[in-house]
Amino acid sequence: MDSNKAATQLLTESQITALENAFKAGDVEDRGVVDAGQVQFIVQQVLGDVLTVSEVRTLVQKGEAVGAATGVINLQEFKDLLIDLLHTTTTRWGALQTSLDGYVGFDTVLEQQRKKFLKKGFEFNLMVVGESGLGKSTLVNTLFKSKVSRTSCTNEPPQKIPKTVEINTVTHVIEEKNVRLRLSITDTPGFGDQVNNENCWLPIYDQINKQFDKYLTEERSVVRRKQIPDSRIHCCLYFIAPTGHGLKALDISCMKKLHDVVNIIPVIAKADTMTIEERDAFKDRIREDIAEAEIKVYPSSLLPEDEDVLQANAPIRKHLPLAVVGSDRALTINNKSILGRQTKWGFVEVENPNHCEFSFLRDMLLRTHMQDLKDTTHEEHYENYRRQKLSEEGNP
Amino acid sequence: MDSNKAATQLLTESQITALENAFKAGDVEDRGVVDAGQVQFIVQQVLGDVLTVSEVRTLVQKGEAVGAATGVINLQEFKDLLIDLLHTTTTRWGALQTSLDGYVGFDTVLEQQRKKFLKKGFEFNLMVVGESGLGKSTLVNTLFKSKVSRTSCTNEPPQKIPKTVEINTVTHVIEEKNVRLRLSITDTPGFGDQVNNENCWLPIYDQINKQFDKYLTEERSVVRRKQIPDSRIHCCLYFIAPTGHGLKALDISCMKKLHDVVNIIPVIAKADTMTIEERDAFKDRIREDIAEAEIKVYPSSLLPEDEDVLQANAPIRKHLPLAVVGSDRALTINNKSILGRQTKWGFVEVENPNHCEFSFLRDMLLRTHMQDLKDTTHEEHYENYRRQKLSEEGNP
Repeated sequence: MDSNKAATQLLTESQITALENAFKAGDVEDRGVVDAGQVQFIVQQVLGDVLTVSEVRTLVQKGEAVGAATGVINLQEFKDLLIDLLHTTTTRWGALQTSLDGYVGFDTVLEQQRKKFLKKGFEFNLMVVGESGLGKSTLVNTLFKSKVSRTSCTNEPPQKIPKTVEINTVTHVIEEKNVRLRLSITDTPGFGDQVNNENCWLPIYDQINKQFDKYLTEERSVVRRKQIPDSRIHCCLYFIAPTGHGLKALDISCMKKLHDVVNIIPVIAKADTMTIEERDAFKDRIREDIAEAEIKVYPSSLLPEDEDVLQANAPIRKHLPLAVVGSDRALTINNKSILGRQTKWGFVEVENPNHCEFSFLRDMLLRTHMQDLKDTTHEEHYENYRRQKLSEEGNP
Repeated sequence: MDSNKAATQLLTESQITALENAFKAGDVEDRGVVDAGQVQFIVQQVLGDVLTVSEVRTLVQKGEAVGAATGVINLQEFKDLLIDLLHTTTTRWGALQTSLDGYVGFDTVLEQQRKKFLKKGFEFNLMVVGESGLGKSTLVNTLFKSKVSRTSCTNEPPQKIPKTVEINTVTHVIEEKNVRLRLSITDTPGFGDQVNNENCWLPIYDQINKQFDKYLTEERSVVRRKQIPDSRIHCCLYFIAPTGHGLKALDISCMKKLHDVVNIIPVIAKADTMTIEERDAFKDRIREDIAEAEIKVYPSSLLPEDEDVLQANAPIRKHLPLAVVGSDRALTINNKSILGRQTKWGFVEVENPNHCEFSFLRDMLLRTHMQDLKDTTHEEHYENYRRQKLSEEGNP
């Protein structure tokens, strides 16, 4: 007996009924067949219009293949098409869903995952890139409300600007409401500070790819760890000088080198040097420069997005690049401690959205898109690296 | 410039201080060195006694390697050891943790994950194995409070017992509190029902491995999907007949063939045929048989367990094999609908823990261990399969 042949995938009675009803509704002239081109619409009716673009494409291609000779598809062929679709793609089954008679309790899987996650903790690797003097360290400290940047937490002597681009990483474990984060901050002193900055993107590019390679090596090894340690850079904050004059050639060339390997979020540093009007004009210019140079910034508009993701990303796209001010000094006003920069002529509140866009950046980076930055790194940038590497090795 | 060489991993000032203090506390005679064997205890003091067994082993080995010539380790060597440990293993950093000055908000990553999970849904693949007539279908329907078993949801004619073991899978999408579960139930009609049952484990074994192979093929392909469809069997409910006479030879040989490829939960079917005393005596006998035959049942006691996992698993281990009664008929008592079996001499309530252990099984399978069954399948059974397959192919 061929034991493999005995394995059968069955449709349930209610699934079959739902499919037959949809097929009959599509077969208006009662011919017993539907046009191959119609299949997609019938399926979308059954599943409730939730197919992704690639699922629809697959379906259309298969439908055309099945109906190639005749241009039409009968009920059995339609069912076979559906079985294929249902068993590879989706938990969104619309009318094919099975109903329950009472509470079963598998929704607790979320709680089970939460418990496991709290035990494991998670990793986030942030990189900051930009010329010296743009307040990169201060901004990172402000984001994480602690001395996490290299310059403020190591006892190295105050440095001269290095003669080449260096890559330094400092790792922290921080904890909030029992969620443990292993945060690593990578900075790149010397970037943009040389006489000739032609290749200063290269050490950064190498460092990012080296982390991909580490991950890939572990993923492919025969004996591997349960959890592959993730040192891949999940986000690169790119600091733009508040010049008022648009992007520098260095900014453009560097972002173009990096945008395929890392999620870039461009920020305008030290935004308190500009009035709100200057800032908005500057942002417009930079947006034009980014569009013209075809620089991909995070969140990428090239990836397929659901309606709700699109809605969440729209305001971010409108605001990028974010004009930020960092400060690790607090002033006490009305018994509240407020982070900001005190000058003779005023007090810039870092977290006040009327003063600068710091809170916008923080919300995005930490409170709404942190997981997505990790997922995009894994699903896009790492996959690109892996695909290229495996292809180069001659894999099919 | 070698760009890779420029990448540096730094310890923060507060991390260094914590390490130095621990080292000095260990160096009681102020020799400037500690014994190699002592390193483990110093590290555990710093990190708060949270190292896993394998981390401790690695540490001891490395410590011995470093101190090989002298038997002692100095502060710099100690720091180097720690950097290694910290950057490969753990988010549990004890005294090395960095403190925050206020609320940052990265704990929302849980909520971000929840949102993504609700969108994606999840997969759970259950297999039921056992002779015909043990109420496998009814029990599965009772577990999921719906007609999910093959025999109750397909319009196949009521079957004769097949002449060979068949493998049938039926897939459902069910939903609870917005959590969508793609549930597949695989049954194996014909198992144990032949004259010669010698090889009836084989089609089951093949089916399980075929799913591993599918997953592995997708995982290794150059272009792969964002989410690998998971058809691997996460749990096998093995039905034991309520004979009162311990395990049959078939049960023993089959479970021993399968226990390395799938999580087996043994259940005593139709437990209402036994009195509570008979049941408990029968369970004792089966536990002895399982122990004697060295059958690994889920949750495996061979995997390392935290204190709290151990505590959660202890009552399960005490109760296995669970004696269950299934029923998809409900009786209305005091306006409450109660699942059970009505006979002339009484009413067995399925979900009443005094009547049978169904609720115990349901809680374990769905409400406490569902995610762990999936994780164990991925981290143990699938990894075993992958390791073996890659080794056979001659990978290092």
